[in-house]
Amino acid sequence: MIAVLKRGTTTEQRQELVDRLKGMNLDVHISEGLEVTVLGLVGDTSHIDIEFLQNIDIVETVKRVSQPYMQANGKFHPEITVVRIGDVKIGGGHFAMIAGPCSVESEEQIIQVAQSVKASGAKLLRGGAFKPRTSPYAFQGMKAEGIRLLMKAREATGLPIVTEIMNIANLDLFADVDVIQVGARNMQNFDLLRELGKTRKPVLLKRGLANTLEELLMSAEYIMSEGNDQVILCERGIRTFETATRNTLDLSAVPVLHSITHLPVVVDPSHGTGKAKLVTPMAYAAAACGADGIMIEVHNNPSCALCDGAQSLTPAQFDELSRKVHQIREIIL
Amino acid sequence: MIAVLKRGTTTEQRQELVDRLKGMNLDVHISEGLEVTVLGLVGDTSHIDIEFLQNIDIVETVKRVSQPYMQANGKFHPEITVVRIGDVKIGGGHFAMIAGPCSVESEEQIIQVAQSVKASGAKLLRGGAFKPRTSPYAFQGMKAEGIRLLMKAREATGLPIVTEIMNIANLDLFADVDVIQVGARNMQNFDLLRELGKTRKPVLLKRGLANTLEELLMSAEYIMSEGNDQVILCERGIRTFETATRNTLDLSAVPVLHSITHLPVVVDPSHGTGKAKLVTPMAYAAAACGADGIMIEVHNNPSCALCDGAQSLTPAQFDELSRKVHQIREIIL
Amino acid sequence: MIAVLKRGTTTEQRQELVDRLKGMNLDVHISEGLEVTVLGLVGDTSHIDIEFLQNIDIVETVKRVSQPYMQANGKFHPEITVVRIGDVKIGGGHFAMIAGPCSVESEEQIIQVAQSVKASGAKLLRGGAFKPRTSPYAFQGMKAEGIRLLMKAREATGLPIVTEIMNIANLDLFADVDVIQVGARNMQNFDLLRELGKTRKPVLLKRGLANTLEELLMSAEYIMSEGNDQVILCERGIRTFETATRNTLDLSAVPVLHSITHLPVVVDPSHGTGKAKLVTPMAYAAAACGADGIMIEVHNNPSCALCDGAQSLTPAQFDELSRKVHQIREIIL
Amino acid sequence: MIAVLKRGTTTEQRQELVDRLKGMNLDVHISEGLEVTVLGLVGDTSHIDIEFLQNIDIVETVKRVSQPYMQANGKFHPEITVVRIGDVKIGGGHFAMIAGPCSVESEEQIIQVAQSVKASGAKLLRGGAFKPRTSPYAFQGMKAEGIRLLMKAREATGLPIVTEIMNIANLDLFADVDVIQVGARNMQNFDLLRELGKTRKPVLLKRGLANTLEELLMSAEYIMSEGNDQVILCERGIRTFETATRNTLDLSAVPVLHSITHLPVVVDPSHGTGKAKLVTPMAYAAAACGADGIMIEVHNNPSCALCDGAQSLTPAQFDELSRKVHQIREIIL
Repeated sequence: MIAVLKRGTTTEQRQELVDRLKGMNLDVHISEGLEVTVLGLVGDTSHIDIEFLQNIDIVETVKRVSQPYMQANGKFHPEITVVRIGDVKIGGGHFAMIAGPCSVESEEQIIQVAQSVKASGAKLLRGGAFKPRTSPYAFQGMKAEGIRLLMKAREATGLPIVTEIMNIANLDLFADVDVIQVGARNMQNFDLLRELGKTRKPVLLKRGLANTLEELLMSAEYIMSEGNDQVILCERGIRTFETATRNTLDLSAVPVLHSITHLPVVVDPSHGTGKAKLVTPMAYAAAACGADGIMIEVHNNPSCALCDGAQSLTPAQFDELSRKVHQIREIIL
Repeated sequence: MIAVLKRGTTTEQRQELVDRLKGMNLDVHISEGLEVTVLGLVGDTSHIDIEFLQNIDIVETVKRVSQPYMQANGKFHPEITVVRIGDVKIGGGHFAMIAGPCSVESEEQIIQVAQSVKASGAKLLRGGAFKPRTSPYAFQGMKAEGIRLLMKAREATGLPIVTEIMNIANLDLFADVDVIQVGARNMQNFDLLRELGKTRKPVLLKRGLANTLEELLMSAEYIMSEGNDQVILCERGIRTFETATRNTLDLSAVPVLHSITHLPVVVDPSHGTGKAKLVTPMAYAAAACGADGIMIEVHNNPSCALCDGAQSLTPAQFDELSRKVHQIREIIL
Repeated sequence: MIAVLKRGTTTEQRQELVDRLKGMNLDVHISEGLEVTVLGLVGDTSHIDIEFLQNIDIVETVKRVSQPYMQANGKFHPEITVVRIGDVKIGGGHFAMIAGPCSVESEEQIIQVAQSVKASGAKLLRGGAFKPRTSPYAFQGMKAEGIRLLMKAREATGLPIVTEIMNIANLDLFADVDVIQVGARNMQNFDLLRELGKTRKPVLLKRGLANTLEELLMSAEYIMSEGNDQVILCERGIRTFETATRNTLDLSAVPVLHSITHLPVVVDPSHGTGKAKLVTPMAYAAAACGADGIMIEVHNNPSCALCDGAQSLTPAQFDELSRKVHQIREIIL
Repeated sequence: MIAVLKRGTTTEQRQELVDRLKGMNLDVHISEGLEVTVLGLVGDTSHIDIEFLQNIDIVETVKRVSQPYMQANGKFHPEITVVRIGDVKIGGGHFAMIAGPCSVESEEQIIQVAQSVKASGAKLLRGGAFKPRTSPYAFQGMKAEGIRLLMKAREATGLPIVTEIMNIANLDLFADVDVIQVGARNMQNFDLLRELGKTRKPVLLKRGLANTLEELLMSAEYIMSEGNDQVILCERGIRTFETATRNTLDLSAVPVLHSITHLPVVVDPSHGTGKAKLVTPMAYAAAACGADGIMIEVHNNPSCALCDGAQSLTPAQFDELSRKVHQIREIIL
């Protein structure tokens, strides 16, 4: 961390600050220039509040040289993380299609969709049991029963299951879930992240609607700092002024994250766009820019889906999508 | 709710849709024009998923005529809600300054700040015990001990206390807290909102960084739908491209909310701007546009504050701020 | 256009409004429901100010059923526009790589880059002569001399040239330019758009940093309404809160625009990301989601480039990019 | 400007960079720490492209210590600029209400509004003659005739006039205009800014919808670098995800700008909110946070206004607004 001091700072003022920083277990290197004096802070600066420093009278500006995340940081962890879910691998050259309905609605529906997406190459089955909904009056998911039906579908097809947790209190219900998803609205529910860090289950962590990629990694760090390094990052669209799409899918997140972290990155174009006709081209784009997985909503009867039907593909649409996605991956590898 | 049908829709297709909507307990009024046919859906449309309708083949476009929130809706609740915390009232012409440190740090600190802000006209004492922090390595608050110290400060001054909850599991610790705050990151932690709806405590609900005012009201609706109508809305800045301030304080939220809801609206210029020197002018602005309360971070030694020191005022600065805020209110009433 | 009237509107008030609308050359169809009355406005509503209507006392809400753009509208122009620049075609299944340096710097540089990108499959040569720069003190381009050098490079390679105009006053200098580019900052410089509409030259119109896709089409409409239908739309990133990239490249724009307009859509991942290492994956993504062209900055010595060097590829990098982009296109066709 | 070098940089590499920077007329101070080496660049760094430096292999990160604007910079120009328009002063404690219709529509209208706003305390008359409109089919203003009518209104009332220029080619028509306005869409029309810099007329420069405050000052710098220091900055709302208001009025811009520049800052709550009922509270807020002027749309018959009627106040509403705005200013001075 670099702190630039204001012109006119006296030697006494500077010494007082240096002593204070040393008291925080940092080494301080003073670089005196003609116009500016720069303090280089060496040591574990990850616990330093950058605004604390900026608030000090004699400090002109502060800049982190290193990132505030450590375990999620590619620099300190040069080996790429491969997340393993049974035989399925994600990351480090391993790619997985994740597919299934927005919500679990019935045993018949979930098994039928699971069989169909498996036949089209999906490696993991997704399906919502607990559904975060803007309105308290909207369908909130089948909850525990939904998880039970997902397990039935896993039994029938062998596909591991991914489903979203909204509340730590429900953690027991997720004991047999293969991948626990943290939704965009909970990306900074820090207590939930910590608890998931204490499990050894893979966590699929979605980027919040207004969160930077650095904040996404800081949330991964919450999970990892408790000992769980099986974190899959997920881009699913950010909120911008554009209203033609539900969100703005920020695909640059894929190569940016690949350049700064060792964790795998998947893309959810269904929530990212909100419209079925946009899902397919954006899935191709996600594959082309290097995503380690793509998550697609598939419904056997999209126009009847209890939620988010507008963005679900039919099994036939998914089949073509999956085939072409794998072809695109061949080219860019 | 209005659904405009596509040109070329056949009578049979239309009838099928009308029957389906009637099956959802809606009355349907058909308005046939030369160029377009419009369906007017009458009844409780708050449980209808607007995207479900838009997804239907023959539907061109859908528009809500009424808002999806009911209990928070000013139209259905013409009397302005006055939230009462002991003798303190907020809303309906009643105004309250809320002040205190970002974090509770020690008994001495919190009592000293409490006495000072009380002397300057604050009606409620704020202070963080559980602190949501982007980094797992940053100071996370004094937790239970912090709440205990807030109560000591209440004892010493008589000021009711406001403090943030991050996790339902801690609800018992808040049994004697006067106003429970829900932070921006938890605005859509729906399970938490529901649980708070089951209490009868006033809730101060902060707007999320990327949430619209309609979504803020939908979150209030989660609380109110469980029977708790003591909700105070709080504008604290949204996330935009501008980096000169930590967030962009959206003061238009105050008159907009006053025009659509009966709930009181307070403003937090400290988090909204992130910089002490901006807090005072933005507090004046908040008062001038009609806020029912203003929430200010005050610290007896801002440059030593464990978190968010950069945005804290000194007691002397707060004293002047409070005086002028009350003068401005006199003018606009 | 649909106008929903407020409850309690009297028959007289309604009649007054209907008469006023008829005076604006519109047919008005009244659809009276139990709860709401809807006016359907038929005729050329493109000149109606939606806010004018919303401002009328008895009007609850207004919704356009048709889009405000007509010539750029895919509905009214089912044949896809193919823009022709000599032998080069863009749109309707025809794809073109556009490449070249950010700025023209010297004859040697521009000819060398032109020869190299041509060898790698580029169909058009780009290069800035007039450069819009945030700072008045930054390099502003070689101006007229830059255009002269571009023509030399065209002579040497046969590649048609694309370059940006910033000021109508310079239009004469662009007489021999093949495609005139309108930059993001000038997307709503309406007088400039009109003048370009009077020429018969292809115009490459970049989306503004904060402009919606509808606004982009309205700006295309300015050009087309003067008789020039050779407009190429260009996505180049929008401004969001994320700082890891210079802008957020909104690739959903490609399929969205293809669904609403007949005009071709190209993508500029160089300005969209601002970083060389992100350009290649985002170019692949642009190809995968169906872009009709991709515009890439290539420099023979990126680290010496006078502007935007940070986002330029080397000729060798471009060669691989171009090859794979064409392979990806094969798959998605 | 500070450049932090990567670890592992050799002495030769460093020397090569230092020589290159010296060749750009900069002094370079080397501050060697244990972990990082920092180069301090002294001299006129305003012409250095920050991305050029970041692009160099051995450079880890670059940070400006000084701002890239010089003439607009409060640090180098401690005396506050007072813009004078005849007897009217704006800035440095001088405040002016600016009012008038969105568009000039007729001689009767503009004179009537001018007389009325003058009676309510306005110091300047605003009115659009050239109107930037998203649609080519919308009313584009009375143009030259509009300017002529504004002058008639000036004659009748003595109020100096403010009106927008959209095109350098029209500069002659503005020869007798008192303050030339540059609209949000032209904030980065750099050629226009330069030409206005060559006049000696006060320029009211509106912030672009997606522009940072630093970019606003850089645009002011374009005008000032040509010798015209009579620049008034204007906040009029930025574009965000919120749709309850047309734009998000960023009032923090007022105290932020006051802390970094000597130029006066006015606020336009009419365009900033887009709704008449929000204009008054936001005008009070603008006064409360220290604006040097407030610009209000007033129309003698808002519901008939040819454009932007939805945001216009009646003369009576303006009269109350103006009175209270002046009272609020008394308090905060």
